[in-house]
Amino acid sequence: MNFASDNWAGAHPAINAYLADHAGGFDAAYGAGELDRIAVECFREIFDRNVAVFFVATGTAANALALATVNRPGGVVFCHEQAHMMMDECGASEYLTGGARLQGLKGHEGKITPQELDRAISRFSLDFIHAGQPMAVSITQASEAGTLYTVEEISAIAEIAHAHGLPLHMDGARFANALVALETTPVKMAAETGVDIISFGATKNGCWCAEALVFLNTGLAVQFEYLRKRAAHLHSKSRFVASQFLAYFKNDLWLDNARHANAMASRLAGHIAASSKLRLVRQPQANMIFSIVERSQMEALRSKGAIFYDGESPRDANNKIEEHEVTMRLVTSFATTQAEIDDFGALII
Amino acid sequence: MNFASDNWAGAHPAINAYLADHAGGFDAAYGAGELDRIAVECFREIFDRNVAVFFVATGTAANALALATVNRPGGVVFCHEQAHMMMDECGASEYLTGGARLQGLKGHEGKITPQELDRAISRFSLDFIHAGQPMAVSITQASEAGTLYTVEEISAIAEIAHAHGLPLHMDGARFANALVALETTPVKMAAETGVDIISFGATKNGCWCAEALVFLNTGLAVQFEYLRKRAAHLHSKSRFVASQFLAYFKNDLWLDNARHANAMASRLAGHIAASSKLRLVRQPQANMIFSIVERSQMEALRSKGAIFYDGESPRDANNKIEEHEVTMRLVTSFATTQAEIDDFGALII
Amino acid sequence: MNFASDNWAGAHPAINAYLADHAGGFDAAYGAGELDRIAVECFREIFDRNVAVFFVATGTAANALALATVNRPGGVVFCHEQAHMMMDECGASEYLTGGARLQGLKGHEGKITPQELDRAISRFSLDFIHAGQPMAVSITQASEAGTLYTVEEISAIAEIAHAHGLPLHMDGARFANALVALETTPVKMAAETGVDIISFGATKNGCWCAEALVFLNTGLAVQFEYLRKRAAHLHSKSRFVASQFLAYFKNDLWLDNARHANAMASRLAGHIAASSKLRLVRQPQANMIFSIVERSQMEALRSKGAIFYDGESPRDANNKIEEHEVTMRLVTSFATTQAEIDDFGALII
Amino acid sequence: MNFASDNWAGAHPAINAYLADHAGGFDAAYGAGELDRIAVECFREIFDRNVAVFFVATGTAANALALATVNRPGGVVFCHEQAHMMMDECGASEYLTGGARLQGLKGHEGKITPQELDRAISRFSLDFIHAGQPMAVSITQASEAGTLYTVEEISAIAEIAHAHGLPLHMDGARFANALVALETTPVKMAAETGVDIISFGATKNGCWCAEALVFLNTGLAVQFEYLRKRAAHLHSKSRFVASQFLAYFKNDLWLDNARHANAMASRLAGHIAASSKLRLVRQPQANMIFSIVERSQMEALRSKGAIFYDGESPRDANNKIEEHEVTMRLVTSFATTQAEIDDFGALII
Repeated sequence: MNFASDNWAGAHPAINAYLADHAGGFDAAYGAGELDRIAVECFREIFDRNVAVFFVATGTAANALALATVNRPGGVVFCHEQAHMMMDECGASEYLTGGARLQGLKGHEGKITPQELDRAISRFSLDFIHAGQPMAVSITQASEAGTLYTVEEISAIAEIAHAHGLPLHMDGARFANALVALETTPVKMAAETGVDIISFGATKNGCWCAEALVFLNTGLAVQFEYLRKRAAHLHSKSRFVASQFLAYFKNDLWLDNARHANAMASRLAGHIAASSKLRLVRQPQANMIFSIVERSQMEALRSKGAIFYDGESPRDANNKIEEHEVTMRLVTSFATTQAEIDDFGALII
Repeated sequence: MNFASDNWAGAHPAINAYLADHAGGFDAAYGAGELDRIAVECFREIFDRNVAVFFVATGTAANALALATVNRPGGVVFCHEQAHMMMDECGASEYLTGGARLQGLKGHEGKITPQELDRAISRFSLDFIHAGQPMAVSITQASEAGTLYTVEEISAIAEIAHAHGLPLHMDGARFANALVALETTPVKMAAETGVDIISFGATKNGCWCAEALVFLNTGLAVQFEYLRKRAAHLHSKSRFVASQFLAYFKNDLWLDNARHANAMASRLAGHIAASSKLRLVRQPQANMIFSIVERSQMEALRSKGAIFYDGESPRDANNKIEEHEVTMRLVTSFATTQAEIDDFGALII
Repeated sequence: MNFASDNWAGAHPAINAYLADHAGGFDAAYGAGELDRIAVECFREIFDRNVAVFFVATGTAANALALATVNRPGGVVFCHEQAHMMMDECGASEYLTGGARLQGLKGHEGKITPQELDRAISRFSLDFIHAGQPMAVSITQASEAGTLYTVEEISAIAEIAHAHGLPLHMDGARFANALVALETTPVKMAAETGVDIISFGATKNGCWCAEALVFLNTGLAVQFEYLRKRAAHLHSKSRFVASQFLAYFKNDLWLDNARHANAMASRLAGHIAASSKLRLVRQPQANMIFSIVERSQMEALRSKGAIFYDGESPRDANNKIEEHEVTMRLVTSFATTQAEIDDFGALII
Repeated sequence: MNFASDNWAGAHPAINAYLADHAGGFDAAYGAGELDRIAVECFREIFDRNVAVFFVATGTAANALALATVNRPGGVVFCHEQAHMMMDECGASEYLTGGARLQGLKGHEGKITPQELDRAISRFSLDFIHAGQPMAVSITQASEAGTLYTVEEISAIAEIAHAHGLPLHMDGARFANALVALETTPVKMAAETGVDIISFGATKNGCWCAEALVFLNTGLAVQFEYLRKRAAHLHSKSRFVASQFLAYFKNDLWLDNARHANAMASRLAGHIAASSKLRLVRQPQANMIFSIVERSQMEALRSKGAIFYDGESPRDANNKIEEHEVTMRLVTSFATTQAEIDDFGALII
């Protein structure tokens, strides 16, 4: 019953098998080899257009380097106040941009709204350099609250960003989970909505360490190779990351993995909804569930082998929570089994 | 006949096999899992003392973060003027330190000398802050010229560094190749000589992406976890890197791989020494050979399938070179076969 | 009727006179001269203890370098959400620290509270490096809302900061205004309360460009000379800044200037309190007044020669404000005349 | 007999007088006032074209911010190996650029040559990102060796820089001294030669603290206001710096001051040439003299009241120097008197 995080799961067997098949032989280092070339081609097919793709090995690197690419002096990024890049990346975006500021916006269920975004950006003015200058908007899909931006919501946010001359970045650590939940395509969810740069995550969905920065707005990528190398994020045996993506996309493994994780979350939510001991903060939309429980109950669950994180209420304020209660976060993955879900369900009846 | 670089080789089958064996199941992310713990223990055995060990995935990250850890405002690092961190890492050390300066020292055959080092450091003074302040010394073992520092040379350099209050960093991208060539041990080569931090490379010697920062001077490592995370170099599935090291150390695979690579270089040097067309810049001491050849001959070799880099003479000035000549760099690896070596030998008789 | 800012005023004649008297002759550059030495001595007298003092020329430099001095990797500074360093310094603190984060705290009337501060710091833990790590607390005295921390409030905040192992920084751009308003001494307001570092401003109170970083906690200053020089904030003719301080402290000019500015603000507040057109957001405690006015009235005042800034309500949310209203900020200085005040008063009857 | 540096001299009386005349009254802060506007206009007249001008208060800030403006990821600046920005600014350029590298070029008498520059830049290639990328060329006029680039030499260097797509920066800490020595004009020396950015120094030539970044290539300046503010180098009472320039240019004070300093250096060189105890390293071309002397003689001169710096030979290697000898650096300024020169002359007969 391990619901700590989707990054606690190992690698999918198909990923390993593909790696083993392509481990031998010599090929050009630093992304110049054949596997890298083919993997980039896969992304072009998926997004049905020319995209600039760069592999990195951590999601934090993808996010921080995306922002470093579009930063300006005194630059300010607008994101949700619970955004992973604000709360959980130890200042990587600030550091790798050389000091940009992340301005956290409030927003229901982990999502920023076009209205609030517009208001926040509009407070800046070229006439008042002291406040700094907006440089990017970033949203997380699926969000840190386990919710999803609809295609229309993404479009509306992109429109505001672009109206202010700002690129829109999507932290897609759980891109696949969002995609299958919305029953849409990368083209519709990201390309046609106006997303400029995606941190395209695969690590949480079955790979070892495979992340890609996908520039739908290819003009922004001109200096990226230097940015990545300078930050020490260019792998000599880059083909190893590329291979993971090749296996990931093959036979729709990525979509299947995500569907499974989401289905497990849905099933788990069913158990919680029926529980007398836990209550759902909200219906999960992807593979992450927040549930409120008495502190003593939580400890009991842990003692019976359930593994998960708990957090303080401020991270999830949309639900009344009592002093003696606590919020549990439960994450499912490609490796979560129905048995685990049902075992947990049995504990909370 | 691929002698481009040891990072053009893939992964050793034993590395893959170990990874596949440990891919499944859940474990704590971000280095808190069991495999990470055991891998760190391996390093403690190898160095026969308490060491602080942190995994990263690129050698450039290891080098740059080592320097970031010990940097001071206005900090200056002393290294050889051909050091990889100066010539080939796109300013990563300068960037991740927030602006330290690498001061390249001259030195025969890719190695700095204690005398020159002492002279260079002594030019700085606390009374003249305008020049900045020394903050570290870095040597590469094996060096970029394919040569080795003897144990005594390392000790002498460490003594100078420490006399000036500076830590000594060793870029050990080819640590194993040096070790077996010197027929010594990690304890004797690095711990007892006074090295404070090692960029302990395994990627070039058979892994996919496995580098470790080993702090022999553990007091320097206090803030390292934050430094690594802030630079986006902490892997969520860190156990994947740890596993590579476990396979690497198992049954002395690392030493065998390095011995093989060195032996191949030695055999290749024999062919070159006997050649009428090429001449050795110097006898190789590890797995990297520099050879001088007429430009037309070099092109002929390439047309026959030999793959290698060539460089301008300033990178290797210890040997007279004519206008129409060029310096080839030939690197062997665990994956180099004797047949390749001899095929090449046949081309240059 | 110029109430735009106290930095719109020129220099006090005594400052100029002193400068002119000490302009000639040669002396050691970069702060090593006699005037610098004496000026530092003045600070030691004022604070009645050994303090480390460093001159810079902008308040932003003082703030940002103070934070750079105490930063840690992934460092987080706690300050009021309206703090000048957050709102008005174009990311200088983030930039010069190499990417620290300023976390804005809410707080009534521009002041943070010990309770909220404690809560905010307590959310961080050494067990969760992903969130970064606290590195400093900063308060502004007088605050951006024109209010003052009492001596007891400063002590309470210092106690919380120190309990968490953090230094307390005071942005004292209007240190003198606060001092005379509280009728206290630098010893009581800053040294005995536990402030560790002060950005000691004199520019806004009659100097041309004179700011000092005063380290009451002298141990923190060890590397400061390098930090200042590296940021290009060490003046070759540093004695010019030192001279301004010598004139500033001579015959209590600084206290007289501040008392005058405060008195003018008080008189202005009296006019506003009596006005039918404006209303005070709050009683000013130093030399800065916020007043609410109908937008049309504001324009009328400007057309009659009054100069001031207006701002949006979020910057001053403690007072109900209507859609058609706006908040004016009025700042007085050593150079503000009673006639100006009364002229303005006449306009708003 | 103070020849330590031209920045040991105080301020010229005319500078003080002008400041005193313009100290009073209110005006817009942060460079938006009338004096700033007029001062910028002066620069446009001097360079006979539209230039973008920004005031800062230290020469190091001017240099470092110039480079920060044009930096690229992995950026490399080419300058003389004795350049002030390399040797004497504590890494400010590296720091404020976020980690650019200064690559020191050899060159006779403190000057780089077009040939050596071309060779150094040509080693970089877009195909090899590991080495980083060239981003600027910087020359110092007058140089750190007291020599001058001729107008033709500057043009030739600019041509090489531009052929490689790089801007040319001139560190003009002693711009005026160079100008009058060459008997040329700012238009001919800087604008028509192709200089893109000038660190236009006035501090060493009679001001308190007045430096300007002059962008002849105005397109490069687009983001400069943010860069300056972010680095904490925007003065609230900017008009104080502007006023210094107004006084500096008035009645050709700047040219007169520089002519005087140069003439004093020339007279001093005459004494040295005639001396039996000292010998000139080279004929001074502006206001800085290097002379070789026995160490005991040097101490004797100091004991008799002469003030100057001495340095090690590597900083000035173009002249044979014995073990027991040392190189003295003697700098003259607007404030140097003929009596001082002749007194010194009397000591060295």
